[in-house]
Amino acid sequence: MDNLRVVLVATRNPLNMGAAARAMSNFGALHLRAVKPYERAYREAVSAVGASAVMKAAEEFATVPEAVADCALVVGTTAVGNRDVRQPLLGLQEAAHLIRQRMHNSRVALLFGSEKRGLSNDDMSYCHWLLQIPTREEHRSMNLGQATAVCLYELSKSEIGKPNLENGNPNATDEKHFAKMETVERITEAWLEALQRSGYVGARSRSTSEEKLRRMLRRFTWEEADAEVVLGMMKKIAAKLTKK
Amino acid sequence: MDNLRVVLVATRNPLNMGAAARAMSNFGALHLRAVKPYERAYREAVSAVGASAVMKAAEEFATVPEAVADCALVVGTTAVGNRDVRQPLLGLQEAAHLIRQRMHNSRVALLFGSEKRGLSNDDMSYCHWLLQIPTREEHRSMNLGQATAVCLYELSKSEIGKPNLENGNPNATDEKHFAKMETVERITEAWLEALQRSGYVGARSRSTSEEKLRRMLRRFTWEEADAEVVLGMMKKIAAKLTKK
Repeated sequence: MDNLRVVLVATRNPLNMGAAARAMSNFGALHLRAVKPYERAYREAVSAVGASAVMKAAEEFATVPEAVADCALVVGTTAVGNRDVRQPLLGLQEAAHLIRQRMHNSRVALLFGSEKRGLSNDDMSYCHWLLQIPTREEHRSMNLGQATAVCLYELSKSEIGKPNLENGNPNATDEKHFAKMETVERITEAWLEALQRSGYVGARSRSTSEEKLRRMLRRFTWEEADAEVVLGMMKKIAAKLTKK
Repeated sequence: MDNLRVVLVATRNPLNMGAAARAMSNFGALHLRAVKPYERAYREAVSAVGASAVMKAAEEFATVPEAVADCALVVGTTAVGNRDVRQPLLGLQEAAHLIRQRMHNSRVALLFGSEKRGLSNDDMSYCHWLLQIPTREEHRSMNLGQATAVCLYELSKSEIGKPNLENGNPNATDEKHFAKMETVERITEAWLEALQRSGYVGARSRSTSEEKLRRMLRRFTWEEADAEVVLGMMKKIAAKLTKK
């Protein structure tokens, strides 16, 4: 669990933040990141008497991409609801299996949105895929602290089987090194720049195109070395396009 | 999940009670029972604006045996800690498997103790066995609402395999009818009466003997018909002992 980063995005209520931190401590996920938390709520939660060590050690970030920059897998949580979901959506059990595999050698970010609205489409565009806790259709949306507890409970289960560790094969999927999100984000920027300069993307449609592109690039499985290569390519292309 | 009764014993904080009710609604466990709740907390939780349907429909009981009288299996939750546990203790995953099997045709009570002390030894003596959510040794004790959420998440998972339903054998364990707790409690009383009247139990050691006996009788698997027979036997014995 030491490779997990729990990222709370725009949390409003200090009690909820404290509850999430407590569940993290229960299940051994000790690294909390807060993205643009409501200032007062955040200060209250950190300075509360009896604030857990997890809360006191929380890191603050201004944006989602900064908070997940050093992670190789970014997973968003959602209750779905009315919003169309544009990313792959997995049930918690299946999701936990994949996350645990990845946590063996890479950092994984797990994002929780604000109490009222959950994650925005923009927040989600930084995610590789989304996970959902299977709740009743009539009452989908969970309390933040409870959702955190349930996810971490499932994540902290020991794997039965652990095929990739047991067969001892260093070339198994587990042992690959995946690109960090800051690299993928740099690719996205260079790529978008290239698209724009090429005229593929018009000035007015830039933000929607950026979101679509970001989602697409996260669907790929970026091994570290591949990512560096593609980043170099895209930078080159973008630079070339300017000169024209 | 319609056969599940979530029993909150001596809950102090209305927010925790509301949170437990919310998790219940999320996972489709709609029957909440409160045993000697702190009066004010309970009234607040029930009458809170936005109190869930689960909270509004909660039933109140004065004692644990009354709250579990119509259930055939009673399971307590515990974070263990310092207290010696005298009942069998199962991890949540294994516990959930057994509870789901029993829920097919019998009512099951799941008990949660107060925020500060958990379930008392007396409360636990009404339980067949205890379950524990596997948390970190350094931080065992969970928040009530979060513990409820995690337990119900695990319980609401669909069974893979479901052997007893799939083989269609009406004599499989699933299809047996288990005794209700009120029957087992009546057996306990008659039994204790018999022990006392026989001089096996002295007046001074009555309460510890009662607890021990209650735990022992709950370890048995009481089928409904057997329980009625034993109850009749014990009543008879106790009555006989008086006449001497």
